[in-house]
Amino acid sequence: MVSVPSFRPIDPTSSAFLLAESRSQPMHVGALQLFEDPADAGPDFSRQMYESMRDTDKVAPLFLKHPHRSVRTGGTLTWREDDQFDIEHHLRHSALPQPGRVRELLELCGRLHSTRLAWERPLWEMHVIEGLADGRVALYTKIHHSLVDGISAMRLLASVLTTDPDRRGMKAPFADGAAQRHSPAPAPGPDADPGGLPAVVAGAAADAAGTAVEVVNTAAKSLADLPADVVRTALGISSEAAGMPMALVRTLRKGLRNETSAVSLAAPRTIFNQSITGSRRFAAQDWPVERLRAIGKSTGTTINDVVLAMCSGAMRTYLTELDALPDQPMVAMVPVGLKAKEASTASSEGGNAVGSVMVRMATDLTDPADRLLAIHRSMQDGKEALSSMTPAQIVAMSAIGMAPSIVVPMLKMQGFVRPPFNLIISNVPGPRSPHYWNGARLVGNYPLSIPINGMALNITCTSYDDKMGFGLTGCRRTVPRLQRLLAFLDDELGALEEAAGVS
Amino acid sequence: MVSVPSFRPIDPTSSAFLLAESRSQPMHVGALQLFEDPADAGPDFSRQMYESMRDTDKVAPLFLKHPHRSVRTGGTLTWREDDQFDIEHHLRHSALPQPGRVRELLELCGRLHSTRLAWERPLWEMHVIEGLADGRVALYTKIHHSLVDGISAMRLLASVLTTDPDRRGMKAPFADGAAQRHSPAPAPGPDADPGGLPAVVAGAAADAAGTAVEVVNTAAKSLADLPADVVRTALGISSEAAGMPMALVRTLRKGLRNETSAVSLAAPRTIFNQSITGSRRFAAQDWPVERLRAIGKSTGTTINDVVLAMCSGAMRTYLTELDALPDQPMVAMVPVGLKAKEASTASSEGGNAVGSVMVRMATDLTDPADRLLAIHRSMQDGKEALSSMTPAQIVAMSAIGMAPSIVVPMLKMQGFVRPPFNLIISNVPGPRSPHYWNGARLVGNYPLSIPINGMALNITCTSYDDKMGFGLTGCRRTVPRLQRLLAFLDDELGALEEAAGVS
Repeated sequence: MVSVPSFRPIDPTSSAFLLAESRSQPMHVGALQLFEDPADAGPDFSRQMYESMRDTDKVAPLFLKHPHRSVRTGGTLTWREDDQFDIEHHLRHSALPQPGRVRELLELCGRLHSTRLAWERPLWEMHVIEGLADGRVALYTKIHHSLVDGISAMRLLASVLTTDPDRRGMKAPFADGAAQRHSPAPAPGPDADPGGLPAVVAGAAADAAGTAVEVVNTAAKSLADLPADVVRTALGISSEAAGMPMALVRTLRKGLRNETSAVSLAAPRTIFNQSITGSRRFAAQDWPVERLRAIGKSTGTTINDVVLAMCSGAMRTYLTELDALPDQPMVAMVPVGLKAKEASTASSEGGNAVGSVMVRMATDLTDPADRLLAIHRSMQDGKEALSSMTPAQIVAMSAIGMAPSIVVPMLKMQGFVRPPFNLIISNVPGPRSPHYWNGARLVGNYPLSIPINGMALNITCTSYDDKMGFGLTGCRRTVPRLQRLLAFLDDELGALEEAAGVS
Repeated sequence: MVSVPSFRPIDPTSSAFLLAESRSQPMHVGALQLFEDPADAGPDFSRQMYESMRDTDKVAPLFLKHPHRSVRTGGTLTWREDDQFDIEHHLRHSALPQPGRVRELLELCGRLHSTRLAWERPLWEMHVIEGLADGRVALYTKIHHSLVDGISAMRLLASVLTTDPDRRGMKAPFADGAAQRHSPAPAPGPDADPGGLPAVVAGAAADAAGTAVEVVNTAAKSLADLPADVVRTALGISSEAAGMPMALVRTLRKGLRNETSAVSLAAPRTIFNQSITGSRRFAAQDWPVERLRAIGKSTGTTINDVVLAMCSGAMRTYLTELDALPDQPMVAMVPVGLKAKEASTASSEGGNAVGSVMVRMATDLTDPADRLLAIHRSMQDGKEALSSMTPAQIVAMSAIGMAPSIVVPMLKMQGFVRPPFNLIISNVPGPRSPHYWNGARLVGNYPLSIPINGMALNITCTSYDDKMGFGLTGCRRTVPRLQRLLAFLDDELGALEEAAGVS
């Protein structure tokens, strides 16, 4: 075991995620990955997978530390190494009941995503799941937001795979050295975890292999122009959840009150913007990126615009069925990558900062083509506004994007009656080429995120191997019949193809 | 849906269980039941079972209410009906990974027993589990201790079964009217739940079919001599968990300080008497009651003595392996049924009150026969002492037995440095004849209980159809290698048979 200093203080942002957590608002992100057996696998490949991971002899430090608050440290939260680390608590072998459809898999993932991680142990779980009728093996991973954000989690999981189908003897994703071995190590940023895994505090939406997230050139010289401690203070939460992190609030106020079209304060109230319960539903599906690309090419829009238009149309149908469609168009917060011109804070992949655009989703328009174009324009306006914003404003926007669970309640305290958006739709690019783990091909990759009070549905997309995977995570009570959104997304893609003349 | 009054206050005892709960100390009891398919069942019997339960049209009130604390009720906890009751949240269909041994089943039950129920919904879950290699279907049920105690839970689950293998069209255990239909309704006690299910607040260890729990005639005229509100106050906790329920403490002090051999304050410190974590392990197995009875007959001891001797021997081997056997004999608290002579508080089955005997487990003796006889004598002493105790003392003892999670911390505050016992061993009689649910025969029945801080292992036994089922529930961290206790119990039974000359 690698030794972690016994009383390393937890940074303010991570502390905030720990303290914002409750039984009805667990603060972990997740991923569902589907693997095909290698040709040379026996009938019990899932057990082999489970056992080889279980027999890991050296776990990475990130997966060994747990939060602790003691009198000795004056009540400050510290990371401690779990000196009674119990791999069989964290790694589980599960199965689906008959008939082993994707439906049963999503049901299990929703259930696993509903339970809260305990502070007394390292904040993660991984479940090897067998029993899919088509023989694929599923891997559900759950990691606390204080350890990684959603984007880092997806990168982390990809980083332990390889493009070589013949490679064997690969380590478990949580094994020490697993990431370094199989992919070029990402350049550690200033907030790199001492344990060796990069903690992407501000998120990194741009990726070497990425296509979907667009990178905006900012007018500001760079985020690097901001003194590092300003960024840290703005993003960090220095007091307890109940307290007021004033630096962040002041920055937000300046950024949001200085209104640009990147900021909308006119989101209508919807069923998604209510208190939530702790139980989750999860829905996931993917579609060929090629279909989205064809629509974009034919209409002069981007793949990301098409993703948003699919969500818009699906949401419109869903809310209409529930007789809950607002008259005003819904607003989505969409994180976008920022291309900082100065290299000092940018990683080798081209960017390490995320800005946020408030996109009017045009859910009031009846025609799919009209919705797509309106979304495209709204997105362009937002990106232009973003490119003219000051670094402080960008930090303010980024803060909302990275930590809505912390920031949204604060906005309310500052007199913003409602959050300025209805939901968050993220689109995180993943690897383009097929990836493998010990010969098992990754054939599906879907993110699970965090619904919060006032924001009961989260949509996160990730591309992989020319498929666009959608992961919808919702409060089980507030977002009824979540699975239907998948059918509506599919319908909308068809409608967009027809409108674009590419069907 | 049957209507439950919207703001019915939660009684003090139930409130105490709700408030004593934390992530590391969930307060629910459970049961694992194994069923054999009926001969006329299709290959998907577990799905039929799941679906027929899911399609319940009227759920019993006990399973519809959830706790709520609102400003309107001055912060008092009240029961509320869940007006968005979601059966698919509570009833789940699960499966075991290959090879589908009992080991995989126990692992899953331990995991399910580790997660905390959320107050925002009715406090129960039921899991239909398929995938056992031998084709049996398992049912794991989890109910919060504020709704039922462990004994009531076992009775409840038995009450919805039938002795008629040909009966079909039976309701789910949580369906309204399920219990009344298939078995004689137990006479409701004074604390009967208005919803129709008897809430056995003080527990009912004696049962019509019971053999193993011995009933003690008390010298006191009856528990009924005590004014009802004294009993309620003594058992109830009227302030929050942090506060001091003084009536109970005074009663306990009187009862415990007035030392009899029923009360031992000399339990040695063991690994079980530490702080616990929220994660559980569960182990279960059964043995023919006939084997225990033969030992008892040959040695002049009772079946309950033999159960305790098995536990003693297994514990001795287990702790010796861990190099953690205390020099002094361990002390177990063993609930026993009290035969109240007056009938006013006794149900028709012969008793509705439980007293507790502190049994010296003779873990310091090397010979199995010596241990059995020492336990027998300690048990007899305790029962004699109990029969001469005053009702107030009995109530004090009962309070410890029913609510150690509440009482043990209070003892500490009162200057008792250690709890006067190391663990609780309960033996709850169940039905003697085979029982069925829609033709599926119940072939195994095992209780899961509540480890608490300072009491990391709980052993609860229940007899059914001439088998004695042991359920061992332990903190996953504090009680390592819990499964080994099963092998040691088996070894000890063999050793006792040999010693008794009945092998």
